[in-house]
Amino acid sequence: MENNKNFVAINYIDCDDHYKDRFETLFASRAHAIDRMQGFVDMQVLKPQDDSGRYLIVSFWENEDAFKDWTKSPEFIEGHKRGFEDIAIAKKEGKTPPMKSDFKTYKVISR
Amino acid sequence: MENNKNFVAINYIDCDDHYKDRFETLFASRAHAIDRMQGFVDMQVLKPQDDSGRYLIVSFWENEDAFKDWTKSPEFIEGHKRGFEDIAIAKKEGKTPPMKSDFKTYKVISR
Repeated sequence: MENNKNFVAINYIDCDDHYKDRFETLFASRAHAIDRMQGFVDMQVLKPQDDSGRYLIVSFWENEDAFKDWTKSPEFIEGHKRGFEDIAIAKKEGKTPPMKSDFKTYKVISR
Repeated sequence: MENNKNFVAINYIDCDDHYKDRFETLFASRAHAIDRMQGFVDMQVLKPQDDSGRYLIVSFWENEDAFKDWTKSPEFIEGHKRGFEDIAIAKKEGKTPPMKSDFKTYKVISR
C-alpha cells in the first residue's frame, strides 16, 4: 500500500478566520468523489497548529497522470462543489473569496 | 494503518542548487533511526516539481507527544548526523549553510 505512493499534490489553503469552521465542516463531510479515481491512494487534510498557517490538502497518487486525470474529471467538480459555490457567492456579493488555494506537486523520492 | 495518522510534522527545506544531489543521496540512504520511534507511522521525502520550490520531509505520527519525543531523542541526532555535519563544515569554512529547514506541525482533521 505505502509503496504505490509515488506522486503527491498539496493544495495550500489560505482560509479567512470567519470561514475556518465552514471549511472544516466541508471536509468532515467530504463527497469522497476523489476516492473513486484510478491511481488515487489516499489523502489527508492538515490543520496548522499555528493559527496563521495554511491548511494543507495532501493527496497521494500512483503517478502524475492519475493526478492530472482527476483535475479534468467530473469527480473533481463533484468533490469541490460546495467550496466552489461558496466562492461564487462571495464573488457575486462583491466580496473577496473566503479562501485561496495554491496547488503544488511533488515526486516521492524517499520513504 | 491509515487511521493512526493523527499528527503530521513537515520540515520545509530550502536547498542550495549545488547541494541538491547530496541532499537526495542522504535521504536515499537514510539511517531509518526515526522508524524505531514509538508512535511513528511513516514518512515521505517530497521533491518539488518546480525547481525553485522547497523539498518537504513529511512524517506521520500517532500523536503530538510521539513527535516531540523524537525531537529530543538520540534517534533524532542519529538520523540527522550527516546533514548536521555538512552544515557544521559550511559554518567552519565561513560559508552559509547549504540548506535551511523550517518545521511546521499539523493535526489530521479529515482523510
